[in-house]
Amino acid sequence: MTLTLSNIDYNISPKFRAGVLGGTGTVGQNLVLLLANHPWITVVAIGASERNAGKRYQDVWRNCRPCPEVVKDIVLWDALQDKKKFITGDLDLVFSALDSELAVQVESDLAASGLAVFSNASSHRGDIDVPIVLPLVNPGHLELVKIQRFYAKSGGYIVTNSNCSTAGFVTALKALQDAFGVDSAICTTMQAVSGAGNPGPHWNQIDSNVVPYIPGEEEKIENETKKILGKLPVSAEQAPALDAHTCAAEKNTGKETDGSTSVEHQDERPPLSDASSSTSGRGTVCAVYGKIHGIIPNDQIRISASVNRVPVVDGHTMSVSVKLTKPPLDENMKLNTSAIEEAFENFTFSIPDMDKLPVIPSKFIQVFRSLDEPQPKFHSQIGNGMTVSIGKVRACSVLDVKFTLVVNNAILGAAGGAVANAELAIASRILL
Amino acid sequence: MTLTLSNIDYNISPKFRAGVLGGTGTVGQNLVLLLANHPWITVVAIGASERNAGKRYQDVWRNCRPCPEVVKDIVLWDALQDKKKFITGDLDLVFSALDSELAVQVESDLAASGLAVFSNASSHRGDIDVPIVLPLVNPGHLELVKIQRFYAKSGGYIVTNSNCSTAGFVTALKALQDAFGVDSAICTTMQAVSGAGNPGPHWNQIDSNVVPYIPGEEEKIENETKKILGKLPVSAEQAPALDAHTCAAEKNTGKETDGSTSVEHQDERPPLSDASSSTSGRGTVCAVYGKIHGIIPNDQIRISASVNRVPVVDGHTMSVSVKLTKPPLDENMKLNTSAIEEAFENFTFSIPDMDKLPVIPSKFIQVFRSLDEPQPKFHSQIGNGMTVSIGKVRACSVLDVKFTLVVNNAILGAAGGAVANAELAIASRILL
Repeated sequence: MTLTLSNIDYNISPKFRAGVLGGTGTVGQNLVLLLANHPWITVVAIGASERNAGKRYQDVWRNCRPCPEVVKDIVLWDALQDKKKFITGDLDLVFSALDSELAVQVESDLAASGLAVFSNASSHRGDIDVPIVLPLVNPGHLELVKIQRFYAKSGGYIVTNSNCSTAGFVTALKALQDAFGVDSAICTTMQAVSGAGNPGPHWNQIDSNVVPYIPGEEEKIENETKKILGKLPVSAEQAPALDAHTCAAEKNTGKETDGSTSVEHQDERPPLSDASSSTSGRGTVCAVYGKIHGIIPNDQIRISASVNRVPVVDGHTMSVSVKLTKPPLDENMKLNTSAIEEAFENFTFSIPDMDKLPVIPSKFIQVFRSLDEPQPKFHSQIGNGMTVSIGKVRACSVLDVKFTLVVNNAILGAAGGAVANAELAIASRILL
Repeated sequence: MTLTLSNIDYNISPKFRAGVLGGTGTVGQNLVLLLANHPWITVVAIGASERNAGKRYQDVWRNCRPCPEVVKDIVLWDALQDKKKFITGDLDLVFSALDSELAVQVESDLAASGLAVFSNASSHRGDIDVPIVLPLVNPGHLELVKIQRFYAKSGGYIVTNSNCSTAGFVTALKALQDAFGVDSAICTTMQAVSGAGNPGPHWNQIDSNVVPYIPGEEEKIENETKKILGKLPVSAEQAPALDAHTCAAEKNTGKETDGSTSVEHQDERPPLSDASSSTSGRGTVCAVYGKIHGIIPNDQIRISASVNRVPVVDGHTMSVSVKLTKPPLDENMKLNTSAIEEAFENFTFSIPDMDKLPVIPSKFIQVFRSLDEPQPKFHSQIGNGMTVSIGKVRACSVLDVKFTLVVNNAILGAAGGAVANAELAIASRILL
């Protein structure tokens, strides 16, 4: 076992064969659109609900863009009943855009059968051995799949991308953390209707209205941000040896510890988990030298989110205030907002040439210096939906700095995030 | 001169004769609707732009509700050219819904001519001797008109109501301040299009979009909130004597000081003022025993606002986080959110029987305990638009408490606020 992320190679052939679960929903269709002419990946199977199983994909397609030629004749499988077809279908990987309730078991079963699962569902994001990866922010967390592989022994694993709002928010926080350190952040979201999937809310509930509630969303933003900004349990240098030998010995004795015994995890907060962890039988913990083999969330950063659904078709907008550890000051000891804009603008790859991953944009963050930008209607397609737009950087008289952020919830915050993770796994030879 | 607000009497007759400036705009029409069948006030004159002067009011009426019978035949005056008609028109008071640029001079001239001006314009809100009054929050600030009367010698004065967002925000903060003390607050607004007047933004700019900018709005929310939560410069007991004697002596010697010499105003922030103060010749300061004769803003409270325009017809929504001086805790030392809900619910009149003022509702704040309320579409008409809706009270992991607030921007935040101020002035015998 070698250090995966130091083996990056962008020359990939032949193509990887992929299945898409939940291919008829909003995220599923976006996945297919992103993969239709992908240089490294070919979609060969699409799963849908029982109602649509057996139909040709183009006959259930409902999108403002036409159904891609290369997938239009694929006959849909039942994502639940035809699970074995995915397992025995000679697939290299599966993308999951399933509803979270379905995703819990289906994704676990597919991973246990040896498949690499790249999931947009929230079901397994809280599992201690499942990483939430944003290649722009925490590519190294992909290494966590080694833990999963070790336990599953099948070679399969689950990699998740974050909640849609989190994708934009954590990108901004990571840029600030690298440059100035982040103490705490308050964000208010104004989220697009497309984030609620199809058909989404009833017209009279959302037209000319603001709905200050999206189930589970505030907790997702707060917890996922801390996990993404957290650290791997052991250093990269130690990981292979520990995985191969020490953990194996532990496993054979049946010894397990929970996160509360972790030396590096002494506060009162339990390790990230959700109801689905136990349901799915995932979340196994291996203690080595008092360390848990899962991401250690960054509980030093305090996050408070208030979420709202607004009558916008695409693009989530957020008003964010952040307290920095070392805020940049100008000669008058006022906040140096230019330094913060530069930190956003200069936020770049932690992996060389990462924009050779097909969906990764050359610029992670587009900075606006006008009074009234960014706006979701006009800026959510920058970088083909993979670039975060940030503007209105100004001093906050309660914390340190405030700004407005727009993230494409359907691409960076969903389908694009999942595809980026698969690309990273392919280029880093985690997916062979 | 007596203490005005101790002389409250709700038996009013005969009716007061009012003019409405800017009567054809959104706020102006709402003023006329509120005054059409008012028990204490009769609209006898309406001012409009030069374009509409000379027309009958019903011929320029554009509102989803019909033009009230009692005003439909009023022939419009030119708010600028016919200023003398308002001055000599036997009016007891004038409501101003003028654009701020026009309001600066017109309102000053009318006040200097002896008229009581109740203005929704922002032009004079920063003037040191002009109060921003919300009868629900700071009725006592109405006493500041005594300072204006003293200097003008005409008996005229200007009373403003707050910015639309501020009206809801400061009501919530006042309830919290009274119960627990407020250290600081961060608010993100999602403001309705009606707040931009008629015709407001272009459709393509706001449909399915969020615009994170409203000129001057963030500064208004921050500064007006501090002024409304500020205090009168001298105690009510001292005020009459100081006004009549000490200030007069000072005035005769031509001595003036600015706020920076004030003993009670030692921080770096200059006293509230805006460009219009000097333009209008208002904002005169009289120093008595080192005190300024204007509201002393509450600069102890730190406020940070982020404003957004959203595609909503009516009703401003705000996500608010507040740090309390003494947060209520339960037996587990967690935030006692029920105590905060009760503080909102119990927030009541500082003046006995104040709901005998015709537009004042019996309940200032309606508390919601459901997951997804309040919402602007369904809750901005509570209390005929004069009640603030608050819900989703929960702990904030960065400050102390967060909640969602809906305020009717057109009524409590504009026309209703101005009418309430006039009613308070009438009932307290400030307007005779």
